[in-house]
Amino acid sequence: MRLLIVNPNTTEAVTKRLVDAASGVASPATTISGLTAPRGFPYISNRAEAQIGGAIALEMLAERHAQVDACIIGAFGDPGLLGARTLFDIPVIGMSEASMLTACMLGRQFAIITFAEALANWYRDCVGSNGLENRCASIRGLRTRFASIAGVQEQMEEELIRLANLAVAEDGADVIILAGAPLAGLAQRAARLIQVPVVDPISAAVKQAEAIFALAPRIPAAGSFRRPDPKETMGLGDCLGARITHRDPMPVTR
Amino acid sequence: MRLLIVNPNTTEAVTKRLVDAASGVASPATTISGLTAPRGFPYISNRAEAQIGGAIALEMLAERHAQVDACIIGAFGDPGLLGARTLFDIPVIGMSEASMLTACMLGRQFAIITFAEALANWYRDCVGSNGLENRCASIRGLRTRFASIAGVQEQMEEELIRLANLAVAEDGADVIILAGAPLAGLAQRAARLIQVPVVDPISAAVKQAEAIFALAPRIPAAGSFRRPDPKETMGLGDCLGARITHRDPMPVTR
Amino acid sequence: MRLLIVNPNTTEAVTKRLVDAASGVASPATTISGLTAPRGFPYISNRAEAQIGGAIALEMLAERHAQVDACIIGAFGDPGLLGARTLFDIPVIGMSEASMLTACMLGRQFAIITFAEALANWYRDCVGSNGLENRCASIRGLRTRFASIAGVQEQMEEELIRLANLAVAEDGADVIILAGAPLAGLAQRAARLIQVPVVDPISAAVKQAEAIFALAPRIPAAGSFRRPDPKETMGLGDCLGARITHRDPMPVTR
Amino acid sequence: MRLLIVNPNTTEAVTKRLVDAASGVASPATTISGLTAPRGFPYISNRAEAQIGGAIALEMLAERHAQVDACIIGAFGDPGLLGARTLFDIPVIGMSEASMLTACMLGRQFAIITFAEALANWYRDCVGSNGLENRCASIRGLRTRFASIAGVQEQMEEELIRLANLAVAEDGADVIILAGAPLAGLAQRAARLIQVPVVDPISAAVKQAEAIFALAPRIPAAGSFRRPDPKETMGLGDCLGARITHRDPMPVTR
Amino acid sequence: MRLLIVNPNTTEAVTKRLVDAASGVASPATTISGLTAPRGFPYISNRAEAQIGGAIALEMLAERHAQVDACIIGAFGDPGLLGARTLFDIPVIGMSEASMLTACMLGRQFAIITFAEALANWYRDCVGSNGLENRCASIRGLRTRFASIAGVQEQMEEELIRLANLAVAEDGADVIILAGAPLAGLAQRAARLIQVPVVDPISAAVKQAEAIFALAPRIPAAGSFRRPDPKETMGLGDCLGARITHRDPMPVTR
Amino acid sequence: MRLLIVNPNTTEAVTKRLVDAASGVASPATTISGLTAPRGFPYISNRAEAQIGGAIALEMLAERHAQVDACIIGAFGDPGLLGARTLFDIPVIGMSEASMLTACMLGRQFAIITFAEALANWYRDCVGSNGLENRCASIRGLRTRFASIAGVQEQMEEELIRLANLAVAEDGADVIILAGAPLAGLAQRAARLIQVPVVDPISAAVKQAEAIFALAPRIPAAGSFRRPDPKETMGLGDCLGARITHRDPMPVTR
Repeated sequence: MRLLIVNPNTTEAVTKRLVDAASGVASPATTISGLTAPRGFPYISNRAEAQIGGAIALEMLAERHAQVDACIIGAFGDPGLLGARTLFDIPVIGMSEASMLTACMLGRQFAIITFAEALANWYRDCVGSNGLENRCASIRGLRTRFASIAGVQEQMEEELIRLANLAVAEDGADVIILAGAPLAGLAQRAARLIQVPVVDPISAAVKQAEAIFALAPRIPAAGSFRRPDPKETMGLGDCLGARITHRDPMPVTR
Repeated sequence: MRLLIVNPNTTEAVTKRLVDAASGVASPATTISGLTAPRGFPYISNRAEAQIGGAIALEMLAERHAQVDACIIGAFGDPGLLGARTLFDIPVIGMSEASMLTACMLGRQFAIITFAEALANWYRDCVGSNGLENRCASIRGLRTRFASIAGVQEQMEEELIRLANLAVAEDGADVIILAGAPLAGLAQRAARLIQVPVVDPISAAVKQAEAIFALAPRIPAAGSFRRPDPKETMGLGDCLGARITHRDPMPVTR
Repeated sequence: MRLLIVNPNTTEAVTKRLVDAASGVASPATTISGLTAPRGFPYISNRAEAQIGGAIALEMLAERHAQVDACIIGAFGDPGLLGARTLFDIPVIGMSEASMLTACMLGRQFAIITFAEALANWYRDCVGSNGLENRCASIRGLRTRFASIAGVQEQMEEELIRLANLAVAEDGADVIILAGAPLAGLAQRAARLIQVPVVDPISAAVKQAEAIFALAPRIPAAGSFRRPDPKETMGLGDCLGARITHRDPMPVTR
Repeated sequence: MRLLIVNPNTTEAVTKRLVDAASGVASPATTISGLTAPRGFPYISNRAEAQIGGAIALEMLAERHAQVDACIIGAFGDPGLLGARTLFDIPVIGMSEASMLTACMLGRQFAIITFAEALANWYRDCVGSNGLENRCASIRGLRTRFASIAGVQEQMEEELIRLANLAVAEDGADVIILAGAPLAGLAQRAARLIQVPVVDPISAAVKQAEAIFALAPRIPAAGSFRRPDPKETMGLGDCLGARITHRDPMPVTR
Repeated sequence: MRLLIVNPNTTEAVTKRLVDAASGVASPATTISGLTAPRGFPYISNRAEAQIGGAIALEMLAERHAQVDACIIGAFGDPGLLGARTLFDIPVIGMSEASMLTACMLGRQFAIITFAEALANWYRDCVGSNGLENRCASIRGLRTRFASIAGVQEQMEEELIRLANLAVAEDGADVIILAGAPLAGLAQRAARLIQVPVVDPISAAVKQAEAIFALAPRIPAAGSFRRPDPKETMGLGDCLGARITHRDPMPVTR
Repeated sequence: MRLLIVNPNTTEAVTKRLVDAASGVASPATTISGLTAPRGFPYISNRAEAQIGGAIALEMLAERHAQVDACIIGAFGDPGLLGARTLFDIPVIGMSEASMLTACMLGRQFAIITFAEALANWYRDCVGSNGLENRCASIRGLRTRFASIAGVQEQMEEELIRLANLAVAEDGADVIILAGAPLAGLAQRAARLIQVPVVDPISAAVKQAEAIFALAPRIPAAGSFRRPDPKETMGLGDCLGARITHRDPMPVTR
């Protein structure tokens, strides 16, 4: 299976981190590739950026979907996920969705631990739009400042682990999700130090993408994820416009 | 108050219809203007188009927010609403949000009537993200085909009214919301023929925008709608990028 | 628009405070009047008093509804609101309802701050009967005693502001509602000191009453707010009995 | 135990029917008495009447609570229930509350069958305020007109039974509640003809009142049902005012 | 009424404690008997043990149901309750169910206090399967170790009372449930020291069993608690197998 | 990975069908084995049988868990799932759980289609205990009788497909789950004829088991799925007792 990680952020290092973590858990038959957003933000961290980054993710997928078998939206909060699932025929998996659904098989209640408390309400939207409020014990984030997003998981490792164990002891969490692409890979290092199972969103997403691909679900001909009928568009990227209009994209010369 | 209706669709006729309906209910002190999306879709009708149209709405607002006092996102489903509320300092109101909250003051349960049944699940997302599931009696849409979106409210008026009265009789609705910009203005004509109060989303949005503007709420310095700290962006429209980076946009020469 | 504030309490000073606050935000075209309960309690502060005060509010409205265009129930908890909406043809708005719905347009989650912690569970009923549990971050009230209800907002201002900011920092509130008629007007003074938008219930109720009046919804001929058929009554106040029996009240001589 | 049925309606025949049905299931040690509202409505059938009737119920209880050991509010919708529980020291039980909680021990989902479909939304409020939405399979009421409330259970018996069996077959009900004082006693006659257990609200209320009385719970000194501190009142019935002010009522001479 | 307490644990002392507490509140016409599990665990304290203990409860009931009029499952968490209600014709009541439903008539929100914090998440399942999440203010358990389950209520009495009062002061509880068979009887001693009504699960269960028995609900001929059609079984206890196969059990010789 | 399908029913043919369907989707590295319940029921179809069958599943797992890497509970309704997850160190996956979580990645709302309408309320419990009520559009089952459970999927194929398409058209389902072990494998044949993606529970369970195994979550040392401390048991199967007592089982001689 050719699995594409669409990173809706512009930071190559994050894409690389995601691809590395993904490769670590992928089945031998899975080939991982990554795609970094050509425009947008170094890191998506609020509802506005998720709105824009999600649209960019659709542009990216429009260009590449035909060359892959499945795709992961590589940012917590799953920007663009439902739109992508509407437009494209391949399985599209979100990191938050995959990690929460996976966590449901490891305990009754999960907690989400992330690197900034300011993300909590936005993440809560995401829990809600998945209808999983009553599986979520709490969302906790760092209150302290850190030097850089790139280094946050190393710099703040101890504090993140403390928050995770607090969520277990105080909030009744049976499972911990370490959320946010900048924390990709931390789960593995921290597993020993957190008292309950830890879900790494990119890892969960890889396994869920493989699962869905293997199940080979049919493309919907009805329901709210049926591919919309052709529609004229104006001023969208060529590939995205072509996909929506049901026409071939212009040949690209690069 | 200068009130801007941001139509995230590319159809001028819809903008005009919205502006006309809005002008009919606006207070004398309110000046209504409309802005049609320079790119995108003639009509937003699914989650993918809402993702893209919402991002376009942010671009549009980035260009114009400084010249107005409040703004309405002129499409049911409220594409870009929470993002806009995050980025800009003026009140931003969504048509679905405003119509549902208004309906809550007119009865216990509202029903949403729209022009295509296929919209129901996506509208349900919107009810859910407003946390109003238990105020919503039902969502009903036309099952029959119609000639054009532009003329749907005239052509299908009788059937839409029948659906509304069914929602009252069968689903327990105390209030009807006639949803979707193409139905703007129908409420007034249909009011006599529907047994319960009818909410016209654009009208509700105008009154709610006036209400919020008059209350002059402070700009949040905390919480999840605090304007994000400056952040570098890449390849976004100049005005949107400038807003996000906290810098002045380039002077526009047109 | 002639807007009546029905204060279901017997304290003239509270009515005056409400009328003053209301006048401060009303549109030029709105004339505010107040009516103090002729019997009942100096202040409604539990479910029993709300039951009785709500019935008194209906008596008050029965006497005055024909002379006004819309009405506000001037007590948090909205005593008598749904009954009034059932019996009378004019828009009737509740202060808690209006403040919560307004808050929904200013953020994802609101917190209610009030002057006595003992009110929390009863207010929670009110959040619940509006179906807004998942928009409510928390309800916090003063634990300390204060000298008099009349002076509580001045005397306890600092502590109320501290609670509000705690609700932002600890409970994830994006908006604060300062609840209870005795706090009417505080919002304005406190706005600067609370980190997020603050909703003043009487102000919100005025703007919502104006909004609903302007939308001119039809009087329901079906649904659960249709005016009930005539029914004999016994021993109710003359005006209330007349309204319920669909007859003219006795001429009053005063 | 002296058990008082407070009928907040003015129809003696309904009180008698309730007392008769209650006597049929009461324990030998229970003495049933009834009290008919001295003012109000022949039958409470909407939110406005419940507001007023509930306040009248409090007046009635204020006069009689000291002479009894427990009390039932004898109208579906439980008008005045929470207020009564706040003010008085004896157990107060509601007919809807008791029937729904009892039904919960007889199956997973109950349906409420009543004599007029127009009652459904108001009854739904009651289900909601008890937090039992997810135990309620449906609420169904007669759509046809009937000659008189007094004779509805006889006249419409067949149709009511048909609705009950429909709720079982179509809505997944495991238990049926025959709701509304005018249906008191029907349960017994209909039991054979309805496929699942049937709960008669007044019977359930009697047994729950006996249960609570026997458990002899302490009078709360905290929480939201603690008896409020003394408070001045104005113009309330003497006994009710006295109860609220914590003083002895005036000696009655009759 | 002959009321059987099925203790799905193997500890005779717990059965005795339950029978004693039950006898203290039972009506004169009620005869209490107890049955201790012949196999299983000294005390059920997690989901695995509830699964097994619940099946054992069914075996016990299969042997004895014909000799009694009603039965109580004597362990918090109600192991086997719904299965028993499916298989047998007599009323079957659960201790947690009965205590929560009873608590609902004593206040808006209850808290569950138990002897080990580790039980909280499992008890939460039970609140959820009863659909009572929004009536439950909190679940609090001892964090400290105690010498023996048999003596926990005496040894830890003070701390349990402190937790109960904390639930009132911090969590908004109007009622306290002292949960877990090892705490049976404590409610009575502690009532004076806890500020709100306290529900003792075994006592509540006795009164609810008497209530349901007195109401004499019909045996369901439809719905999800209709007794299943005869089915072959293999290797179950003789009485249980006989009940499921609708045949007479083998004569027992002991 | 050695993956065991624990069939808590006694019907070998069902085990075989499950193993066959599972083998069809398993990764090359997965070895599937099946285990049929040595006692119990030919088919589990209500809450009582799930209680007993779940306990039997624990006995079966106690005997075999050490020889496998992961396990699936092979009956819809997931009997014994949470207990198994508490007691054993290997991943344990339920067929209903896995199919519902998988369905969540294929659409917003799923419907469950099964072979007998009588199963609906019990399946609803399962949806509820997974906290997925708001993802479930409907549960529909055959109302007509069929000759045998073994042949139901062939005999009733057309009707099952009709129900599935009805759930899409009428209930808003985006995904269909064909539930119940007797339908294992039907999904594949029916996929072409059902308009939306179809989830086959055993297939979903296999892929989820592989996913969880690959993620190698740590064994919980806290939370409500921590393995309980050693506890004495009485009269349980030797292996199950040994597992609970933390001792070695007796050597088996067979």
